[in-house]
Formats: sequence, structure tokens, C-alpha cells
Amino acid sequence: MDAKEFRIRGKEMVDYIADYLENIRERKVFPNKKPGFLKKQIPDSAPFEPQSWIEIFEDVETIIMPGVTHWQSPHMHAYFPALNSYPSLLGEMLTDAIGSLGFTWASSPACTELEMVVMNWLAKMLGLPDDFQHKTSGHTGGGVIQSTASEATLVCLLAGRTRALKHYRSLPSEGTNITERLVAYCSDQAHSSVEKAALIGLVNIRFVKSDDTLSMRGDALQEAITKDREAGLLPFYVCASLGTTGACAFDNLEEVGEICRKENLWLHVDAAYAGSAFICPEFRTWLKGIEHADSLAFNPSKWLMVNFECTAMWVKDAIALHETFNVDPLYLQHEYSGLAIDFMHWQIPLSKKFRALKLWFVIRNYGVSGLQKHIRHTVNMAKNLESFLRSDPRFEIPAERHLGMVVFRLVGENDITEQLWKKLNSRRNIHLVPASFKGKYVIRFTVTSPRTTIEDIIRDWKEIETVATDVLGYADDSKRTRVPLGGNPQTDLNDMFEFKRH
Amino acid sequence: MDAKEFRIRGKEMVDYIADYLENIRERKVFPNKKPGFLKKQIPDSAPFEPQSWIEIFEDVETIIMPGVTHWQSPHMHAYFPALNSYPSLLGEMLTDAIGSLGFTWASSPACTELEMVVMNWLAKMLGLPDDFQHKTSGHTGGGVIQSTASEATLVCLLAGRTRALKHYRSLPSEGTNITERLVAYCSDQAHSSVEKAALIGLVNIRFVKSDDTLSMRGDALQEAITKDREAGLLPFYVCASLGTTGACAFDNLEEVGEICRKENLWLHVDAAYAGSAFICPEFRTWLKGIEHADSLAFNPSKWLMVNFECTAMWVKDAIALHETFNVDPLYLQHEYSGLAIDFMHWQIPLSKKFRALKLWFVIRNYGVSGLQKHIRHTVNMAKNLESFLRSDPRFEIPAERHLGMVVFRLVGENDITEQLWKKLNSRRNIHLVPASFKGKYVIRFTVTSPRTTIEDIIRDWKEIETVATDVLGYADDSKRTRVPLGGNPQTDLNDMFEFKRH
Repeated sequence: MDAKEFRIRGKEMVDYIADYLENIRERKVFPNKKPGFLKKQIPDSAPFEPQSWIEIFEDVETIIMPGVTHWQSPHMHAYFPALNSYPSLLGEMLTDAIGSLGFTWASSPACTELEMVVMNWLAKMLGLPDDFQHKTSGHTGGGVIQSTASEATLVCLLAGRTRALKHYRSLPSEGTNITERLVAYCSDQAHSSVEKAALIGLVNIRFVKSDDTLSMRGDALQEAITKDREAGLLPFYVCASLGTTGACAFDNLEEVGEICRKENLWLHVDAAYAGSAFICPEFRTWLKGIEHADSLAFNPSKWLMVNFECTAMWVKDAIALHETFNVDPLYLQHEYSGLAIDFMHWQIPLSKKFRALKLWFVIRNYGVSGLQKHIRHTVNMAKNLESFLRSDPRFEIPAERHLGMVVFRLVGENDITEQLWKKLNSRRNIHLVPASFKGKYVIRFTVTSPRTTIEDIIRDWKEIETVATDVLGYADDSKRTRVPLGGNPQTDLNDMFEFKRH
Repeated sequence: MDAKEFRIRGKEMVDYIADYLENIRERKVFPNKKPGFLKKQIPDSAPFEPQSWIEIFEDVETIIMPGVTHWQSPHMHAYFPALNSYPSLLGEMLTDAIGSLGFTWASSPACTELEMVVMNWLAKMLGLPDDFQHKTSGHTGGGVIQSTASEATLVCLLAGRTRALKHYRSLPSEGTNITERLVAYCSDQAHSSVEKAALIGLVNIRFVKSDDTLSMRGDALQEAITKDREAGLLPFYVCASLGTTGACAFDNLEEVGEICRKENLWLHVDAAYAGSAFICPEFRTWLKGIEHADSLAFNPSKWLMVNFECTAMWVKDAIALHETFNVDPLYLQHEYSGLAIDFMHWQIPLSKKFRALKLWFVIRNYGVSGLQKHIRHTVNMAKNLESFLRSDPRFEIPAERHLGMVVFRLVGENDITEQLWKKLNSRRNIHLVPASFKGKYVIRFTVTSPRTTIEDIIRDWKEIETVATDVLGYADDSKRTRVPLGGNPQTDLNDMFEFKRH
């Protein structure tokens, strides 16, 4: 394909993308496929001769799309969001066209410098303490774009491990088997990536029991640390979760942070999903205690409509990262080595994409106000679903709804909720995943897409209601008399009832 | 930005990208900037109100492009290639529009299944043994797309570590401090990411001295292993390099492989750059011994024109990966858990992009024949530069040219070559990085872009010649009488001389 053909095919692709996203509501959110479906439709060897774009592109609708889970659909409620947006797509197009790698400052100066500027913007948008920002000199903090929150958790665990090894190896009393005695901590609600980080980092991990609100509290953490120290173990790292995967619960950062400072542990804050909400001042109460943290990460690639991959991570002490990753061969040295930031020392891979572009485009094109509006809209949509669920006594909401996520279950044994979940997914009108906490099987409902309207939520609720009746064998007629809506200023009841008549 | 505006801006972006790539020869390959240049031009806080796309996009040419190192330029000869191509850009556009995450089969079935199919295609294109391919059952091998070669090296080191820990922990005679005694091996020419992987994996690493051709040989490896075993250490992993960063040298895979089998070590083959060349049968001699390998990785994101990130990695035994990374929370389980591949168990991050699309598009649109042609063209361009260098006795080529990379230096002390390199880069007409081996400071010249023509190579050579004269204070007039070309069938001397007249 030459430039001339790309001008045609690229524009066709732009229209295809706009059509796909504009009409995504019409596609079943989850595919009706079984493992192995795709290999039957594709030759098992690559073609020797070139194929025309027309031939290739035809396969997108016939072979690929029927096997896609449509994450941008307004009826996608599984996992957490992984949103894109038009300015983000434009940013990634440009990034891939430039195709520069940003491992050192010199390998693409604009890549490194825009990342520094935009990570400072974002730090201010979240109200983070100043020492997480890049400053001109005499300051070791700053932000970096990682690929995923998993990697941010791992990178910070490794930095904490470096610091701990240095510390404990300097104490002659600690003996030789230090590495085998290091312990990391997180809540029993923390994401699986924290356990994965400990496996990779070859350290022990302790899951601290969360309280009734699924929050890791100071006293439980302190008790675990004290017991471990008494047993000769070496606590070194705590990952606090702001917005857990199971129920969007929040660890008590203030309590946890004070303990980390007292015990000299690296405190990493994983706010992968909830971090986006902190651009709205009203949601920052959960950030109380952030001044005690050594590092924080969240995913603009979840809820801020910056397409995957894009994880924002900040550290107060980048030297700990340097000491962890610093391998500095001649072929990567440049005129300003040591004088400019080389982000290869801040991450696991050597190379990085010019990802700051899409973040810069999204923040500017929406403005902080536009992004706030989007966050608040999502939260309001979740509030609506919560109201519907609360209006029907067959359902219970076993953990407080926070932000854009509601967890619910049918009153009774776990297996009926599991049945409900399976039936809902098999109908493919909405897509959900289950979770489990405190012995309860629950269904997670995350509002993901900015395209999700109140009409979509009503349709989703009708679907859940209908399938519940199917599973339980009875409807809850009592609720027919209720107005099934909470205090959502964006709700228009006329629209709702109109939709219900369809 | 709504869909209507995206249809306009997206098409403008397509034209901008086509213009950028068509006219990239006209831009200075390396920017003339100092650290801190960009922050002066951008407000230090994000805008609260939305900004128009016109306002944003204007800044691309005025603020961003002057700070970009143009990796797609035909005069980009630093590092290794990081190429894009039009079908690859179209693939990534579609990937980002769909915006699905492929951590489990269910999270986007087409994403997982296309990756399996295309990785099988690629395995066959390289002539890899069958046991690296995904088979239907009773078979544990297969390929996966990683983000970077650094991660592939790390993932395989971790898998080898898991296997070794299991083995040594089952031997009561080995005692308790097993983890601190594990040793990984690589050549003293291996990429810095191998050392980084060992740092992360908390294992020792031994750099085996390469021979005069910069190749790790069996006897040197065997000697290191034997000595380490005698000292009570536990060898577990070897990373063999096919195409080193410093000089594109090749470890002797056959010798190394036999030792790894005998000593029961995980053998990972890092062919990050050279792997693309193995699609041409004539370059596969270096793959001799590949049947002994446990894993292999190379970067289609380097030389196969599939834009970054895209690392192809294969393993024979995916169970070792599962045992390394397997954390399986309820919220990631699905109807086919255990029956289909969940790639989250094959990699460090949980989530992955639908990267197989761009690989599929590129392979089909070029065909194997088109990709072979591209590889051969690059190699021929490097051969031309080699001939020019050999025609001028001021230069020496201290390591054999392999594939698309030539290393050279000025005869004499290292500092004059360093001077030459600095002056060349400061003129910004070509961009190069240095390397060092066996005490010699060299300049690496990698042919990267498919746009690089013989005219470009001649221009590059004139630049090198001119600056060498500047550094040394004399030209080598003896060469004027020579025909400075080797046996390159694609070379047209008339074109060359015509170009010289400009």
C-alpha cells in the first residue's frame, strides 16, 4: 500500500470507525462464539503473495467483528471501562505515524518532555501533593506513563524492594537470607495484579482482612505487620487500593499511610479505576492521607477516555526507580545523559511509545470541565441502576455503591445469583462479570461508556428484572407502584416511560 | 468531538500522516533542542474549558514536531528500526476503535484467537519447529504477542526461575537459600534488558565472554556453568542473542543449545532485531540449534513494519508460564475458563490490546514475498554502505557486517571515532548511536527504513566522508579511483553518479 492508497483506505477506516462507534448500540455486546471458532475461517499459513486491502478489509465484518466483545458499547458493564474517544484515537494515529521510541530523552525529546508536562497537568487535576510533580531541580518526584496498572504495581513493588534490600543489608544483625523474608501487604480485596507482582518480585505477600465495608483499616494492617516482625519477617511494601475490583471499596488511606510512615514501608496507591474520579473535587475524600504515599497509579485508559494503554504513575523518589532498573549501555547514552530524564529507568520495558500525545489531546479537547462532566454522568447512571435495584426486594446490594459501579445479588443462596449472571450473559444484551467477597457471590455492574444514557440503563434494568423473574419463577409485583428512581438530576421521567412503552 | 467532527478530523489526520511519511526525507532526522525546551511552550496546567481541535492540532507542527527524532526517516540509522507501514497503521486504528482488552478468551474471543492464528503463521514463516505452535490438544507450546522484547526476556527468565525453583526445592540436599544461588547467563554482548530481567527476577547473572566474532560459544558457556556449579551456585537460564545490539553478532545457538539440554537450563533466544530476517530462508543458518530452545522472541515492531508495540514470543511449554503468573480471581473467570487460552497467564500485565490485527493486516497486504523483498532490500543497502566504508582506508569495520547493520570506526584511537560520531549527530543529517566492544569504540549504522534508497545511502556516505575529513584534517584521495560498490544487484551506477552531481 502506498501513500496514495493509504489516503483512500485511511479515510474509509475513519468512516468505518465513526460508523462502528455511532451504531455500537445495535451490536450484541457479547459474541456468540465457542473456542476455536476463528481458526476454521482463516488459512493456517500466511499468504505468499500480497493480498489487496479490499480482500483483507472484507474479513473485518465477516470474521473479526462476530467474535468481538464490544467494550465501547453502552451495555458493556463487565470489568472496568476501557474507553476510547475521538481525540484519543487521533492521538494514537499520530503517535503510530511518528513511530518514535522514547527510552531516552534523545531518542525522541518531545516524547519525554510532553509526558513530563502532561503528567504534571494530571497531578494537578487530581489534587496530588506537589512532590509528585516534575520540578526543575533538586527534586526527585515525577510522573510517568506506564502501559498498565499491573506494571505500575510491580514497578513500585520492585522500587520498594530495592530500598528495603539496601536498608536491611546495611544492618549486620539481619543475616543473609533477607530476600526470602521480605513481605508485601495488600487488602484481601486487592486486584490480582498485586499478587502477581509479589510472585514476580519473589517476595511474600500478606492479604490483610478488610472490614465490613471491604476497606483495609490501620489496625488490621498494624496487627499483621507486628506479627510478621515478631516472626522474623521483613515488611517492606503496602499496596493500598482506592476502588477495589470486586466492589469499588476504598482502603483507609489515612490510617494505612500513617502506619507506612511509622514502619518505613513503601506505600503504593492503586487507584486504577477510581483515580479518574479524583478530577472531581467531591470525590477526593478518599485521597485523604495521600501525602504519606510513595507512589500512586491510575488508568486514564479506563475512565478518562484515553485509549489503552495509558497508566499514569507518580513517585516521590525516582532515584529508587533508577536504582532498581539502571542499566546504562553506551548505545543508549547521549549528549544530555544524566541531565535529562531517560524514562527507560522508570519502567520495565526499555522502549516506550509517544503516549503523552493522546492524553494531551483528550485533556485539551474535553477540558477539565468536560472530563468532570463525563465522570459525573457515569456516576449518575450507576445511581439510577442502584435505585432500580433497591426498588425490587428480590435484590440486595451487599456493598455500598461507589462511583460508577453497583454490585448486586438476588436475596438467597449464591447459586441463584450465579444462575442469573449466566443467563444474563448468554442473552448477550448486557455483559457482566461476577465477583465474590465475604462469602457472597455478586454481580458487578460497571457503567463504562459515555454513550450510556438513562434509556440504556432502563433497558439494562428491564433485562435484569426479566431474567431474575425467569430464574426465580416470580416477579416482584410490589414494585410496580413505586417510582423507581433516586435523586438523579439528569433523569427525565417522561423519557423513561416513553422508552418503557417500546 | 462528535462522530461528525471525527469524520473530518480523522481524514485530515490521514492526509497529515501520508504527507508526513511521504515527505519525511525533508525533515532533519534529529531535533535541535535542549532539555526543557517544551515546557516553556505549554501552559503548566490543563485548560478547564475545552479547546477546539484546530487550536490543538496547530501545536503539532509548531511545538511537537520540532522536538521529534524521526524514526521513519531514511536517514535514521541509530538503534534498531522501529518501523510502521500503512496496513499496520490501519490495523492499530481499528484496534483502538474496538478498544477491547484481551486478558481472557471471553474478554474478546477474536483477540485471543486471531493472535493464536497469526502467531502460528509467523512461526511457519520463520521455519520454527512445530512444537512452538498452538495445536488443538495435548500440546503445550504456542506463540503470544508481548509488548516488548525486554518483557519477553523477563517473562522467560521468570518461567525458567519457576521451573528451577520447583526442581531445586524438590531436592532436600539443596538447602533453603536456593533463590539467592540461581544464575542466569548471557553473552557479554547481550542487550541491557537481560541484565534488567535478572535484576527484576532477583537472580545472579553471568556475562559469558564472547569470542573474536562477538559470539557466545559453547566452551565458554560450559566453563562458566561448571565453575558456578562447583561454587555451589544453581545455573537455570541462558539467553542466547541472535543479532546483538552492539554489532549484530550471533551466539552459536547449536553449541549453546546442546549445553542447555545437557545442563537442564531454560534456553531463551533473543532475536529482537534479526528475527525478522528469518522469513528469508537464506538467513536461517543462524537458527541452527533452535530445536533446543525453550523460548524465542523477536520484534515484528522492529523490521517487519508492524508498528510498536509488537513482540512475537513462542514457548514450548506454556505450563511454565501459567505456573509463574497464574492468579485466577472470580471476576476473570468465564464459561470456557480452562478450555480456551487466557493470555493473561502468558504475560506480565493483565490486559492486552488486540495487536494481532495489525500483524494480520501487514502479513496479508505485503504477503510473505513482499516482506522478504523488504528485508533483502535493507540488507543490500547495508552492503552498499559497507562497500563505501571499505573503499576508504581511513575507516575500519571491526566486526563482520550482518544483515542491515554495519559498525565502523576511524582507524586509530577511540576518541577520534567519538568525535566523528558527535559531529555527525550534531549536523542532524543522519542519526547514529555508538557502541563499544573488545575495547573498541564504534559507530553503529543500521539501515532502518524501507524508504532508504541507494541515493540516500550515497548521501549518508558523503556525509560520513565529509565529517571524517573535518575530524581527521585530511581526505583519502586514493579512493577516488575506486568504484565504491560491492555486489549489489539493485544498484544502478548511473543513478548514483547522477545523484553525486547534485
